[in-house]
Amino acid sequence: MARKLEMVYGNHSVRAILLTRPSAVIRVVILEGRDKKTGRYNRWTEEYLELTRRASIEPELLLMHEFLRVTGLRENDSHQGICVFVEPRPIYGEGDLGVLAENHMVIALDQISNPQNLATILRSSAFFGVDALILLRHRAAQITPEVVRLASGGAEFVKIYEVTNLVQTINSLKKLGYWICGLDERGLATIWGTNFEGRTVLVVGAEGEGLRRMTKENCDVLVSIPGGREGLESLNAAVATSIALAKVRHSQSPS
Amino acid sequence: MARKLEMVYGNHSVRAILLTRPSAVIRVVILEGRDKKTGRYNRWTEEYLELTRRASIEPELLLMHEFLRVTGLRENDSHQGICVFVEPRPIYGEGDLGVLAENHMVIALDQISNPQNLATILRSSAFFGVDALILLRHRAAQITPEVVRLASGGAEFVKIYEVTNLVQTINSLKKLGYWICGLDERGLATIWGTNFEGRTVLVVGAEGEGLRRMTKENCDVLVSIPGGREGLESLNAAVATSIALAKVRHSQSPS
Repeated sequence: MARKLEMVYGNHSVRAILLTRPSAVIRVVILEGRDKKTGRYNRWTEEYLELTRRASIEPELLLMHEFLRVTGLRENDSHQGICVFVEPRPIYGEGDLGVLAENHMVIALDQISNPQNLATILRSSAFFGVDALILLRHRAAQITPEVVRLASGGAEFVKIYEVTNLVQTINSLKKLGYWICGLDERGLATIWGTNFEGRTVLVVGAEGEGLRRMTKENCDVLVSIPGGREGLESLNAAVATSIALAKVRHSQSPS
Repeated sequence: MARKLEMVYGNHSVRAILLTRPSAVIRVVILEGRDKKTGRYNRWTEEYLELTRRASIEPELLLMHEFLRVTGLRENDSHQGICVFVEPRPIYGEGDLGVLAENHMVIALDQISNPQNLATILRSSAFFGVDALILLRHRAAQITPEVVRLASGGAEFVKIYEVTNLVQTINSLKKLGYWICGLDERGLATIWGTNFEGRTVLVVGAEGEGLRRMTKENCDVLVSIPGGREGLESLNAAVATSIALAKVRHSQSPS
């Protein structure tokens, strides 16, 4: 039975795919761009050709109308003239949590709903060496092609889990030796006073609402980011998450 | 001579204005929302009425078509049913740098061009107690009503400077006792190994390109955020800035 291929587009995201799972790439389409004066391929087209040559993949060079027809993208989507069709990325589930026994840094999102925030969190996660990102299967932003592109390649470096019950998942991770740290404005501990050097799950709540009560109760500690003032009490959710990840990474690999 | 009023809209931004400079507010327009069942004002309308009452300002309650006509907004702009017209915010210039002699935390943007990034930086700056944000007058994102709204009130808590020459500005700040720290991927120092407890200017470069050569050469130190991997070398510019600000704030007020 044929599985539906995943479409990944944009310079950074495609590069990350070619780096991490070139064998999953089935088809590469490149927008044929030419320099108006010389008539030769422009810089971008040349770079993409070189990139796919190195990955031993034969690309298809298409003019704009064909490129848009094949990809279903619109001219002002930020495709940057490159799009690949790949075997769908593996999405892990509750049954695969054992895989994380060998890892150290996991992030769990309790109903983050804004795709831009999800993308930013993916990018920061990849930057700081997060092993896995756990998402709710329902009522939360999902890993769409747009999110993958906005993550600038971040989606390729982090194992993605979709789960139904976050509390159960957290408790399974506790059994694997993970320490569960909820990011919470009213947390008594702060990220600065907390040493995250052991296996850590950072749990992040929805924009505005924060962690749900049951999620909070199942955390080992609630940590806050010091700051804020009357009239400006909170950070953007993806920014807060990234700051906490920076500190977790610093605890685990001081440098 | 009448100066053009500034329009500020959206729940958080308007609240921040009413908190920081209520006397600058000339006109408040509220979208009249009613509960379908009871016919009474809905929760939002009630809250806005209460808010303006506390600030002793007489609001105008308008139906949608009037609200849109008066504000020039479109229905799907994120106005959240409230808009105020205020005396234009003060924008400081090169001649006002002396004001910063009594301050401690300044951020300077070397050609940040994405309005969403500028807004996120403003919000994080206000959260972490930045005293002033320095922008280039040309070739950079500006403080538009959209940026003010996206900053969720952040624009009201930070003095905004527009300057023509960043290197000159940096050097004026040095004379006021500021230490100039450039955020740079290739910086030899890291944010973790750096103590920012004195007067600090954090200088941040353009998305993708980073700091310009002359800016870099005029910094006292270049600091990086440890992390990254092949295929994902950088963070989003506003995220990186926010992480560095979090650390500067921690150096200045450990908690």
